[in-house]
Amino acid sequence: MTGPARQRTFNFSSGPAVLPEPVLRQTQQAIWDLDGTGIGILEHSHRGGAFMRVLERTEARIRELAGVPDDYAVMFLQGGASSQFFMVPMSFLPADGHADFAVTGAWSQKALAEARRYGGVHVACSSEAVDFTAIPSAAETRWTPDAAYAHFTSNETIHGTEWPTEPAVPAGVPLVCDASSDLFSRPLDVRRYGLIYAGAQKNLGPAGVTLVIARKDFLERGRRDLAPMLQYRTFAAEQSMYNTPPTFAIYIVGEVMAWLREQGGLAGIAAANQAKAKLLYDFLDQSTLFRGTARADSRSLMNIPFRATTEALEKEFIAAATARGLDGLKGHRSVGGMRASLYNAFPVEGVHALVAFMDEFERAHRSSAA
Amino acid sequence: MTGPARQRTFNFSSGPAVLPEPVLRQTQQAIWDLDGTGIGILEHSHRGGAFMRVLERTEARIRELAGVPDDYAVMFLQGGASSQFFMVPMSFLPADGHADFAVTGAWSQKALAEARRYGGVHVACSSEAVDFTAIPSAAETRWTPDAAYAHFTSNETIHGTEWPTEPAVPAGVPLVCDASSDLFSRPLDVRRYGLIYAGAQKNLGPAGVTLVIARKDFLERGRRDLAPMLQYRTFAAEQSMYNTPPTFAIYIVGEVMAWLREQGGLAGIAAANQAKAKLLYDFLDQSTLFRGTARADSRSLMNIPFRATTEALEKEFIAAATARGLDGLKGHRSVGGMRASLYNAFPVEGVHALVAFMDEFERAHRSSAA
Repeated sequence: MTGPARQRTFNFSSGPAVLPEPVLRQTQQAIWDLDGTGIGILEHSHRGGAFMRVLERTEARIRELAGVPDDYAVMFLQGGASSQFFMVPMSFLPADGHADFAVTGAWSQKALAEARRYGGVHVACSSEAVDFTAIPSAAETRWTPDAAYAHFTSNETIHGTEWPTEPAVPAGVPLVCDASSDLFSRPLDVRRYGLIYAGAQKNLGPAGVTLVIARKDFLERGRRDLAPMLQYRTFAAEQSMYNTPPTFAIYIVGEVMAWLREQGGLAGIAAANQAKAKLLYDFLDQSTLFRGTARADSRSLMNIPFRATTEALEKEFIAAATARGLDGLKGHRSVGGMRASLYNAFPVEGVHALVAFMDEFERAHRSSAA
Repeated sequence: MTGPARQRTFNFSSGPAVLPEPVLRQTQQAIWDLDGTGIGILEHSHRGGAFMRVLERTEARIRELAGVPDDYAVMFLQGGASSQFFMVPMSFLPADGHADFAVTGAWSQKALAEARRYGGVHVACSSEAVDFTAIPSAAETRWTPDAAYAHFTSNETIHGTEWPTEPAVPAGVPLVCDASSDLFSRPLDVRRYGLIYAGAQKNLGPAGVTLVIARKDFLERGRRDLAPMLQYRTFAAEQSMYNTPPTFAIYIVGEVMAWLREQGGLAGIAAANQAKAKLLYDFLDQSTLFRGTARADSRSLMNIPFRATTEALEKEFIAAATARGLDGLKGHRSVGGMRASLYNAFPVEGVHALVAFMDEFERAHRSSAA
């Protein structure tokens, strides 16, 4: 019933994205019968023992993997990062205060736009002048010491830029991060953050669950006159069980966390991610037909946008790659070109296949041009 | 990889709840490879052709099954009914206006409580005086002609009561319904509603998606100064694709809709549901040890709460039933006793097994008492 074990397509999608094959195999089993209960994971009551064990082990694995301290809550919400864009300012941005924003691309622009509904905003830095191809340096950035919080987007999925490390914000200003496209792709120091959020559908699991990790005393600053479902403290106090959580998506996140541990944890996966991205960046750096678009010091290990010398060649390349089983390489419509997303679960064999095909494509067009 | 085809446990859970076994088998395949694409349903880009076909066929099946007219939007949201409890009044209840509520149990009480944050509320009827064991009659109900909308809960999952048909509200007042636990368990006339919402995890699919069906001109009355994710019109205009939707949950809903069509559509499943519920109610009506708690004219076909003569017997019964492979029969903690949820996908064999076991249990306790 699970289909032949043939080679699957290499899936370069920016999200929802490739998941580890052992997780998929385990999930096929759990859909019919979770942990020998005779009931599938989709069908278990969220209040029953079987799902409670899933929830608890998922949280425990996240805490172990990322070193989440006890004074931080681990929560599972819904609505994606797009809902965090309004939930954060709704709770934490007073109408007469302001929050600081590092504006590095389309996603941080969206977070900024939603915050304006609730209070003041200060743009601490922006790379719009260079078409969001770079992460601003500390010298180009002005955080304010009295901000309600400081927001940044650790990886810009569309523009393919990634912060090399967390920005240094003034002492006492809670750092808030949209880490949707690079959370758990490398080690992080949770203590540097007030709140981290990530839609799961890149590195963590399927679409439909948002992981939020936040310092509990920061959460207590949030407004109390909102509907319970709009207050983070509800999720922290009720272990994400105030209402029915997205049980299946949480299950997958738990399985992905177990798989990450087998890859050597965050340090192990970071080394693998660096090696995978280097294969493609090295090819791009020597190519005369293709080129990467992000500035070298700001390159993302997760999403690698690149262009060919003409749009006609790009169109031809994408079609030929798709026919060769290299799927999802079309760049975001707002920037054009190509994009290869190399998330944690993307296999190195797929990068080799892509580079080999790009090389073949380039040689064919060099000889036909000659 | 999919496990032995042995008999699964009979799952009486009130939600998340049993799903059709053919849907589970189909889903196991789709997790590895959706529709021959070489990529699983969890991993497909929501903007790609494969998922767009899933989304479109799911909507088309819902429209066909329930006869949803073209001037109604079919939307997929997140956050469960608990998020609808605030989203509806946030959009449609003016601070200087009021909405009408039929209060028939715990869920309608929650909807009412959230609405109070935004504007006035009028209790059109309440069965609290009879411990929510009945649906009030039309004579006991006072709707107001100038309400922004009139809200009712078609089936109270905890108390096991169900409206026999939609309440008759004054002309021009939009009828809003929380149909989480009985949507698509019987035919309905969508034209009578302004907006219907249902968390999927009872009759429609897994936890993590909320189906909302609403008249488009009603949606246009909603507030425009809210975050896009809080405005229904965003979901209607963008075909639920303003941000990444819960792709997998939508896939399952589509498969469940196809299964429902094979069951003879809503008329066919309604006949099956009536037959299943009758088996249990008939047993309860003749039993001297067990009794149903809802008034006869208000009985739910979906959730059947019942009591035994003593709490000690109830505890013994639940433990013995669980050991016999009859799972999830414990009643909600707020009301105690037992509850059998007999949603669309619950097999009639499971009702026979439950009734046979109740009969056996009753005979054993009669003879031991004799």
